Amino acid sequence: MAQRAQAVRGMRDIVPPEAELRRRVANRILDVYAGYGYEVIETPAFEDLDVLVGSDGGDNEKLIFKVLKRGAKLDEGLRPGGELADAGLRFDLTVPLARFVANHLNDLPIPFKVAHIAPVWRAERPQRGRFREFTQCDIDIVGEPSIAAEVELCSATLDVLENLGIGGCTVRLNDRRLLRAAVETYLGPLHNAGAVYIALDKLDKIGADAVAAELAAYDSLGVQALLKWLQEGDISVGPGAVAEDLGQTLSSLARLGHSARFDPTLVRGMGYYTGQIFEVSHPDVPYSLAGGGRYDGMTARFGAPGLPMCGFSIGFERVCPLVDPSVFGPARRKVAITCAGEEEMLRCLELARLKRAQEPAAVFSVLRRARNVRKQQDDLERLGYSEVVEGRDFSA
Amino acid sequence: MAQRAQAVRGMRDIVPPEAELRRRVANRILDVYAGYGYEVIETPAFEDLDVLVGSDGGDNEKLIFKVLKRGAKLDEGLRPGGELADAGLRFDLTVPLARFVANHLNDLPIPFKVAHIAPVWRAERPQRGRFREFTQCDIDIVGEPSIAAEVELCSATLDVLENLGIGGCTVRLNDRRLLRAAVETYLGPLHNAGAVYIALDKLDKIGADAVAAELAAYDSLGVQALLKWLQEGDISVGPGAVAEDLGQTLSSLARLGHSARFDPTLVRGMGYYTGQIFEVSHPDVPYSLAGGGRYDGMTARFGAPGLPMCGFSIGFERVCPLVDPSVFGPARRKVAITCAGEEEMLRCLELARLKRAQEPAAVFSVLRRARNVRKQQDDLERLGYSEVVEGRDFSA
Repeated sequence: MAQRAQAVRGMRDIVPPEAELRRRVANRILDVYAGYGYEVIETPAFEDLDVLVGSDGGDNEKLIFKVLKRGAKLDEGLRPGGELADAGLRFDLTVPLARFVANHLNDLPIPFKVAHIAPVWRAERPQRGRFREFTQCDIDIVGEPSIAAEVELCSATLDVLENLGIGGCTVRLNDRRLLRAAVETYLGPLHNAGAVYIALDKLDKIGADAVAAELAAYDSLGVQALLKWLQEGDISVGPGAVAEDLGQTLSSLARLGHSARFDPTLVRGMGYYTGQIFEVSHPDVPYSLAGGGRYDGMTARFGAPGLPMCGFSIGFERVCPLVDPSVFGPARRKVAITCAGEEEMLRCLELARLKRAQEPAAVFSVLRRARNVRKQQDDLERLGYSEVVEGRDFSA
Repeated sequence: MAQRAQAVRGMRDIVPPEAELRRRVANRILDVYAGYGYEVIETPAFEDLDVLVGSDGGDNEKLIFKVLKRGAKLDEGLRPGGELADAGLRFDLTVPLARFVANHLNDLPIPFKVAHIAPVWRAERPQRGRFREFTQCDIDIVGEPSIAAEVELCSATLDVLENLGIGGCTVRLNDRRLLRAAVETYLGPLHNAGAVYIALDKLDKIGADAVAAELAAYDSLGVQALLKWLQEGDISVGPGAVAEDLGQTLSSLARLGHSARFDPTLVRGMGYYTGQIFEVSHPDVPYSLAGGGRYDGMTARFGAPGLPMCGFSIGFERVCPLVDPSVFGPARRKVAITCAGEEEMLRCLELARLKRAQEPAAVFSVLRRARNVRKQQDDLERLGYSEVVEGRDFSA
């Protein structure tokens, strides 16, 4: 019986010309970030499970794809101390970056500005438009304690989006220290603030009643007061320095020509944030295009000093559909040379080689003429071929 | 206790500036291939295990990293019919491509010329210089039955290498039909030719005696005669059409200006090849830089017609160390602006933004001055910064 040809459940193939557009978007993002001094790194797809679990990654930790150990016996997992899996696929690029920085502390300039674009994997319940493999595109500043980091990250991210033709974006800004003060004011001192943040983060998705239900363990009047605070965002609940920082970030972004506002309802799901958090909204879409925040000290988990860290991550799959290919300038000239058979093809391969040397920016594609000439021409046109020449008419 | 900061066993982090060089190499490869009409695709990192297992992938099938099913219970693997893992990470890009083509047959122009650059994973025993995650860079022609496919793939691959400054390469060429004829002449008709190819493929690594030992199940005089054939490569053992095709491929490559020769010892480890096979050698290194061949009919496994397919794969990690960054032209001007603190940084962020608008090709990186100024300057120089300016001296 034939194997199924579909991609594995929850993931997808990317056909032309979408894959080429994705490549161009990724390169444009990295080129703009490079102008700010963000250096590219790579980390492996896998991390030790101990790196991923207990990383304060919120619900994402429940969605780790675990990888079977090389040569693991199936009954090992059942024996005390037995382990079937000791590695997992990364669910974000933030936790691997903290490990990376700790690992290479002596080889890196600190402060260090870093860019990282790569796939991540989450074992989400498969649903329409939600994939188990997707690409994140992060920039981070390691070693900068002040809000100069937040300001530059937000500014660079808005620049990238504008450069991709996605103007009119707004940064929404909040601070975990402010949220924490509000939560503790209304719910009392907390052991597990992370669980409260995860619940609050769902407010715009599931509504106030459902959030209140998730917080049923807390005093219901307190929960109502907290939900009211989220709407009004009285900044005086937090320490004065936090309000000052928020104001400084907002005014600095305004001076750089960006749109930015305080949003007390912004929470973000991950537990690891320690200061300002931010997302980017665009008027045409109901979801954020990018999100990030400060997560000082994560490197300490890996035996290194606890450095200040702050990052911003663009949702690549959310941005790509908004990009008009014309932002990359005029398309390459594409010429298809369709041939009757081997002999004609071999002759045209030589001619096409000369043509490419004369006009390196153009595409000269030699291929056999399909039986269905009309379909082949339509297919080639869809791929951007403006000229289809018969092999016998092709000359240098 | 702190987590270990090292990358997961057998894999590695890539620090700057190597990651940027890798990005440039990958883009140059895809740009040159695009000039030939190879369209980029992407496939997921995972495939159903049934796709990977039984794909005639040779020893690679034993090295599949299996991924635990979402929510799998550990005792499921022990029950009859229980399954802990139903997916695995791809070990090459060839098997996923055959599935991809079968999946999208109606959306693709056939003949289809495709480029695919992506990581693959193999659970190799960790050893020096050998990694469990590495990048392959493939081009394939789907739907071309004649050696015009082989000729173009070899020519395009040598062009890419030359374009990366790696001239002087030679294509070594053989044909599985010829090898099969030789094997059957000396060992008799075979059920499992794949196992014989895997043994013969190790000839230059382990030597003739060790190969003979791996083939101990066969008549020893026949094995000796086969090993002798590998050295002499009497082409008359195979069907006449095979010899004719080999001659045609070699003369066509010569007409295109490439160096190419018949190499009877070239075997390749995968079982799925059906016709010509090839590798690229370079005088400076003892290993091949690229390898490939024809694997007609693989799409039939996935319920599609068995199309002619032929591909060539560049070993990215083998090529990158041979690339001199100067092939990418003069380096970007890089200016670091080192600041005394938040206030100076915020002012310089505005100035740097103006500078970038004036000189978009340059890098202007604003960052805090490190306590160890000398180390910071050395680190920045290593990353290509030719100018380090103090924030208070920076002006638009």
